[in-house]
Amino acid sequence: MSEALRLEEAVAILERTPAAVGALLEGAPETFVRATEGEGTWSPYDVVGHLAYGERADWLERARHILSGDPRPFTPFDRTAMFRESEGKTLGELLATFAELRARNLTELLELNLGAGDLVRTGRHPDFGEVTLGQLLAAWVVHDLDHVAQIARTMAKVYAEAVGPWSAYLSILRDRQK
Amino acid sequence: MSEALRLEEAVAILERTPAAVGALLEGAPETFVRATEGEGTWSPYDVVGHLAYGERADWLERARHILSGDPRPFTPFDRTAMFRESEGKTLGELLATFAELRARNLTELLELNLGAGDLVRTGRHPDFGEVTLGQLLAAWVVHDLDHVAQIARTMAKVYAEAVGPWSAYLSILRDRQK
Repeated sequence: MSEALRLEEAVAILERTPAAVGALLEGAPETFVRATEGEGTWSPYDVVGHLAYGERADWLERARHILSGDPRPFTPFDRTAMFRESEGKTLGELLATFAELRARNLTELLELNLGAGDLVRTGRHPDFGEVTLGQLLAAWVVHDLDHVAQIARTMAKVYAEAVGPWSAYLSILRDRQK
Repeated sequence: MSEALRLEEAVAILERTPAAVGALLEGAPETFVRATEGEGTWSPYDVVGHLAYGERADWLERARHILSGDPRPFTPFDRTAMFRESEGKTLGELLATFAELRARNLTELLELNLGAGDLVRTGRHPDFGEVTLGQLLAAWVVHDLDHVAQIARTMAKVYAEAVGPWSAYLSILRDRQK
């Protein structure tokens, strides 16, 4: 049931993600934290690093880019930067970084005092061209939820065989990273 | 990467679910809590009711059934009981019930002092026949994670159109309830 973006609602979802991801993963068994869905897929640990890096280099920076009126495309975002950036860091450190940067970014977002007119301002995405600030903020929310679902799916697959015949009823075991 | 079930790991995941679901939903905008994926699909509110009802009528009860040696099939579980059981209850009430029953059930599960020999004991599922206690416990874990992913997916779809061209990169918007 698709809805228009309302800034205060988007912020209300964005501010929940660190706690939701932390509740799933903080102190969870390594078997689940480091599981992947197979070669070339990400573990929950990798996903948290990706979310934390996105707070430094992706969403809010692009919002500022749009508001600055800069006509150049956004700097492409490195989706796999966390394989380098997370090196040597514990899951707890990455979760803390994500939570801290997210809180700071949402404070800064609210300080921009965006009005309805700002949400239709446009910038240039390196892949698909013209996008609005409202679309960027909606994508930030959906991106969070996509990764929450990915973490749950990856953890579920640890027991893909252990569930035996129940797999018929547990469709998540057949979903894949796309 | 599929692994064998270890009881203490299964419990470690099961005990996180109420906090994870609560972090996603408690105090979240109604637009997201009551959203569905379309006709015949469940809202996050419905899913929480389903999880709470499962603590009363499904998983631990079936574990006890197996351990009792009763050769009769398990009582079929009513997957849509929450449409009746949740009536008049707030999301906060359902979350609290889920958290309370889950904590009590895990305490009782641990008090059973299950050994490796118990995990291969069998019972009869009404649909697919012989199942082991270990399979039941693994299915309990995966069932939780399946519904966490479902909640995230349903919330994401609220902004299915608001994301504009970003939908190309947000595959969760194309996943469906199966």
